[in-house]
Amino acid sequence: MKTSRRFHAPGADPHFASDNISGAHPEIMAALAAANTDAPAYGADEITDEFHELIDETFGSGAYGFPVFNGTGANIVALQAVSHPHSSVICADTAHVYTSESSAPVRAGLSLKPQPHREGKLNPADVAKVLASDAGNPQAVQPTAVTISQVTEMGTVYTAEELTELCNTVHEAGLAIHMDGARLSQAAAALGQDLHGATTALGVDILSLGATKNGAMGADAVVVLSNRVPQDVLAPIIKYSTQLASKTSFLSAQLNAMFGTSLWHRNATAANTAAAELAAGLATINGVDVQAPAANTVLAAMPERLLIRLREHYIVHLWGTNGAGLPIVRLVCSWATTSQKVTELLDVLRG
Amino acid sequence: MKTSRRFHAPGADPHFASDNISGAHPEIMAALAAANTDAPAYGADEITDEFHELIDETFGSGAYGFPVFNGTGANIVALQAVSHPHSSVICADTAHVYTSESSAPVRAGLSLKPQPHREGKLNPADVAKVLASDAGNPQAVQPTAVTISQVTEMGTVYTAEELTELCNTVHEAGLAIHMDGARLSQAAAALGQDLHGATTALGVDILSLGATKNGAMGADAVVVLSNRVPQDVLAPIIKYSTQLASKTSFLSAQLNAMFGTSLWHRNATAANTAAAELAAGLATINGVDVQAPAANTVLAAMPERLLIRLREHYIVHLWGTNGAGLPIVRLVCSWATTSQKVTELLDVLRG
Amino acid sequence: MKTSRRFHAPGADPHFASDNISGAHPEIMAALAAANTDAPAYGADEITDEFHELIDETFGSGAYGFPVFNGTGANIVALQAVSHPHSSVICADTAHVYTSESSAPVRAGLSLKPQPHREGKLNPADVAKVLASDAGNPQAVQPTAVTISQVTEMGTVYTAEELTELCNTVHEAGLAIHMDGARLSQAAAALGQDLHGATTALGVDILSLGATKNGAMGADAVVVLSNRVPQDVLAPIIKYSTQLASKTSFLSAQLNAMFGTSLWHRNATAANTAAAELAAGLATINGVDVQAPAANTVLAAMPERLLIRLREHYIVHLWGTNGAGLPIVRLVCSWATTSQKVTELLDVLRG
Amino acid sequence: MKTSRRFHAPGADPHFASDNISGAHPEIMAALAAANTDAPAYGADEITDEFHELIDETFGSGAYGFPVFNGTGANIVALQAVSHPHSSVICADTAHVYTSESSAPVRAGLSLKPQPHREGKLNPADVAKVLASDAGNPQAVQPTAVTISQVTEMGTVYTAEELTELCNTVHEAGLAIHMDGARLSQAAAALGQDLHGATTALGVDILSLGATKNGAMGADAVVVLSNRVPQDVLAPIIKYSTQLASKTSFLSAQLNAMFGTSLWHRNATAANTAAAELAAGLATINGVDVQAPAANTVLAAMPERLLIRLREHYIVHLWGTNGAGLPIVRLVCSWATTSQKVTELLDVLRG
Repeated sequence: MKTSRRFHAPGADPHFASDNISGAHPEIMAALAAANTDAPAYGADEITDEFHELIDETFGSGAYGFPVFNGTGANIVALQAVSHPHSSVICADTAHVYTSESSAPVRAGLSLKPQPHREGKLNPADVAKVLASDAGNPQAVQPTAVTISQVTEMGTVYTAEELTELCNTVHEAGLAIHMDGARLSQAAAALGQDLHGATTALGVDILSLGATKNGAMGADAVVVLSNRVPQDVLAPIIKYSTQLASKTSFLSAQLNAMFGTSLWHRNATAANTAAAELAAGLATINGVDVQAPAANTVLAAMPERLLIRLREHYIVHLWGTNGAGLPIVRLVCSWATTSQKVTELLDVLRG
Repeated sequence: MKTSRRFHAPGADPHFASDNISGAHPEIMAALAAANTDAPAYGADEITDEFHELIDETFGSGAYGFPVFNGTGANIVALQAVSHPHSSVICADTAHVYTSESSAPVRAGLSLKPQPHREGKLNPADVAKVLASDAGNPQAVQPTAVTISQVTEMGTVYTAEELTELCNTVHEAGLAIHMDGARLSQAAAALGQDLHGATTALGVDILSLGATKNGAMGADAVVVLSNRVPQDVLAPIIKYSTQLASKTSFLSAQLNAMFGTSLWHRNATAANTAAAELAAGLATINGVDVQAPAANTVLAAMPERLLIRLREHYIVHLWGTNGAGLPIVRLVCSWATTSQKVTELLDVLRG
Repeated sequence: MKTSRRFHAPGADPHFASDNISGAHPEIMAALAAANTDAPAYGADEITDEFHELIDETFGSGAYGFPVFNGTGANIVALQAVSHPHSSVICADTAHVYTSESSAPVRAGLSLKPQPHREGKLNPADVAKVLASDAGNPQAVQPTAVTISQVTEMGTVYTAEELTELCNTVHEAGLAIHMDGARLSQAAAALGQDLHGATTALGVDILSLGATKNGAMGADAVVVLSNRVPQDVLAPIIKYSTQLASKTSFLSAQLNAMFGTSLWHRNATAANTAAAELAAGLATINGVDVQAPAANTVLAAMPERLLIRLREHYIVHLWGTNGAGLPIVRLVCSWATTSQKVTELLDVLRG
Repeated sequence: MKTSRRFHAPGADPHFASDNISGAHPEIMAALAAANTDAPAYGADEITDEFHELIDETFGSGAYGFPVFNGTGANIVALQAVSHPHSSVICADTAHVYTSESSAPVRAGLSLKPQPHREGKLNPADVAKVLASDAGNPQAVQPTAVTISQVTEMGTVYTAEELTELCNTVHEAGLAIHMDGARLSQAAAALGQDLHGATTALGVDILSLGATKNGAMGADAVVVLSNRVPQDVLAPIIKYSTQLASKTSFLSAQLNAMFGTSLWHRNATAANTAAAELAAGLATINGVDVQAPAANTVLAAMPERLLIRLREHYIVHLWGTNGAGLPIVRLVCSWATTSQKVTELLDVLRG
């Protein structure tokens, strides 16, 4: 049988390659089953009405969101909402939207201004530098927004203080700030924040709210958090960006199950815990250089011989090299990563 | 309770507004449940492997397809696969991609050349006219493709003879032909064709294969049927068009359940049968002008007083006026439209 | 010598092919020579200052214009100024911007909505039809502008009454109206209007002001005429549309010489007069079907044998066929078309 | 009179702000006058025929070029010729096309990958770095070209050895290399190269050939130098990028006068000589830190008090700060910069 092949081929096991390799949480499946009735299309249904109420309650009075299919869709829609045709969007040069979404940003008319990252983060000086060269310069695209990722692509997490300071700088310059929150739940759980505290309260203006990587079948959302971003642009952008689901109720049902209960927090905590366990185990292996993870992503430098051993079993993504020239392996844990899976990986490395 | 509100508000009942108001068929839900395991992301999973085999077997040796989220996504991806930056795509002026997908085509760089439709259809003369004015003209965009809808937006269905003739004209001119098959299953079932006979056998080069409107939760596909379209362009286009699902296996599972069994045919036949029943009933109502539907869409002209009565219960889309100036109502039946639902609508009109 | 070849090859004579085959008027050359000094770049020069004053004086208080390189550039810039990403622009299906500017509109993000023309013109009913189907429809691009050509591509000219009525309809619907005035001078001269009377006074909101076809070396302009169009969008659009000349003073000098004197009127009158003379001559030739031209473009239907004779000498553009199936030849006169040139063409036809 | 205002306002003198502030050389004006006759439009004229022959002779067998209006147009056209919709183009983060052409690249669908510059230059390691992260990565845009500027935006000039090495790296990776030659003449004159030796001979595949900054009224060209770039894409790209002049002969006439004689070399040498003179003078001024310029651009660090004095007379562009925190002033000399102008500036600084 075909399924007998699964993960048995050398280097084919996707666990730890990313958190999007895990399926959907049972509560998500149950929500989809419960949502399976006739409903008006394109978001005019009751489940999406409930989603709108949930967003308003969760992110603060007046927040407005709409479901989209995936994270790239969320980012592309959100950044168009804060852009005009001669806008630029400042980002870290590690930003997913700059490195990993192919030409989607350019084809949506977005001029990204990548800045050298600081462990995956931007800080106010990075923003100031672009403003100094570009703002008011008729030859240059005009900065209108900053986008950051929380959790960052380097696995780090902005503290509340860091984000507040960055948002203040951004707002003082008259710009808006977008958060790519594909892993917002994991960051908030790690920092002990609720979703409002992790976003609106810190000054974030528009959010890509991720659920897919945290146990949904496939659903994310764009959420406008402040009046720096007009809400009424969202619907047409979603439509012309091909991100409008006819049966929106099935996306809303997943998001309601995720963010209308504690599921986001339970799943994120499980992922973060597994990552901590994985890092602790790695630290005991000779030659591995690893630090305690900020959320659910572990970056570990290791000698080539260990990397080879790992690749005999797993799909492994490299994330550059460390100061000593050793390859850095990115290992991501998900809501579904069990202690047994962690032990399996550590056993592989222990040989 | 909120759900008690559903469809009870005046004019709120979405039945017959479109076939995308019905939920997912139980076999689709079962397939999703069965697919809910860990899997490599972005289509590297086994269920998507099975989808590739299914497409090859169903549409003929060498056909290659990939799942996307929705019909607009399928059309935008497929048309980019047959275009270059100074291409034009000839379509009927009723084409969904011209009338109902907002600026998605333009933002993907597609120059549509709408031609006056003939009951929703194009014929070879329409293509010849555009070629005569544009082909080789350095001032004009160069025709590289024709797109047609099967079922058309007017509810008509191209016969095999019509499509063969049109495809021959298109190919002789060196162009490719795309079929927007959001309702291909309904057309094929109505004409007694299998899926290969409805597409590849007639000369279609690339297909938007619809499942969402025929009982999927949300899944469509782009399928390259001939070597007039390079297959290797599909993957990057899907990525940069924001249509790549990380958990592709959940889209593939729906498509496998739909097209790897007779589900597509059973659901389409149910929709067509309901439409025939609805049209027959409408024909008995005084003042209604209706013909037997070609598939699952009924266009019926009726006096204003009947329209008003209909709108007291239903969401109703108008589709222009007939020769006598009466409004034409579009009523669409789905796989889930029961005889009871048909009777309810007829009773409303009978007053 | 190479120049001895010129126009002696069979069918190589470009006269009457278009009005852009004539060189630059001596007054334009003199203006360029006078402008040839050091000057700040990008329009910060004194000659461009004078251009701004001239536009303000000519088109009415508050009009604001900027020079661009060519007519396609002017149209693409102007239409972007009245569009947003889910806008549509209603045009005749003969509009130059729809038929003859390749994919420039699409690549600038413009969704054109071509309507069947009425001798090259649109009327209020055409606009109303698009509004009825698209305005407020979330599936459709939203009409924000209408573009018309004066002189039209069919050689016809909108009367003041026609344009006033059309502008009123457009404005009542909350849209803006753009005029492709590549041949505005010829139309205004034919109708006895001044430039203000031909544009602002009738309700035109934004104008592509053509000079190249009327004796400039190469210079056109975009002019914002009403407060329905924000002026401050013009500069960035010109920049990112590649239409900003570093040595703008040389464009402004041409426009000042053209519109700051009677040159526009003298040249246009010469072109119109030559066209009238040509049409009168053609009317005397057996088998030719021609009407008095509205401006400088003559459309003449003629039997195939005359067309063949014409093509032995001239570059000839066909403009479809007349009711009797005869080919229609488009013949355009310019400011430089002499009576001798007209006689030469008539002699060719007379055999 | 208005002209009496010119350059007398405080800080209004544009000399040294850029080389595009100088007018057209008398030989250019003479060529335009000689070209002022009737001619077929859109490049079908004899003067453009001569331009094609000139390009072929100058840049090597088979080179093909076409005139465009300006440098931004040349760059945008050229980079589209080496791109597809999921291409990236590697550039220095100082590249004009990245910093100074607003959103023109993005709106043309170009994904730029800016790399930290090395005195305005890229080297093979920069290219290798992007290839290592992006080539073959389905999440990333695929590198298809590298663009460099000669003279660079920092006033430096690639040596023949540097360019050969870079071109080799680029070609071995299967990419094409584009040169933004807005100041190619100045670089070639400085290095003692002819135009072929400065481009084709070193491995450059496609060139933006600048004339405007070196004494033309307004004309540049795109030149395909190798068979790594298909020639037949140039014409449609120029058309849909709004860069096709109807009266192309007036652009070709300028380019023929510039590159068909020694004018390019004489003008470039004059500019380079003036820059050397300026730098030598600046070096004698207390507090000014300046090096001998590579071509016609002088970068000089100076204390704030000198900058203030300079700005009382001149339009001054800053180019960052030096290691000691002093502002760096960019001063550019043109073909028309006289010794008197140089002395005037030095006198201002001497106080």
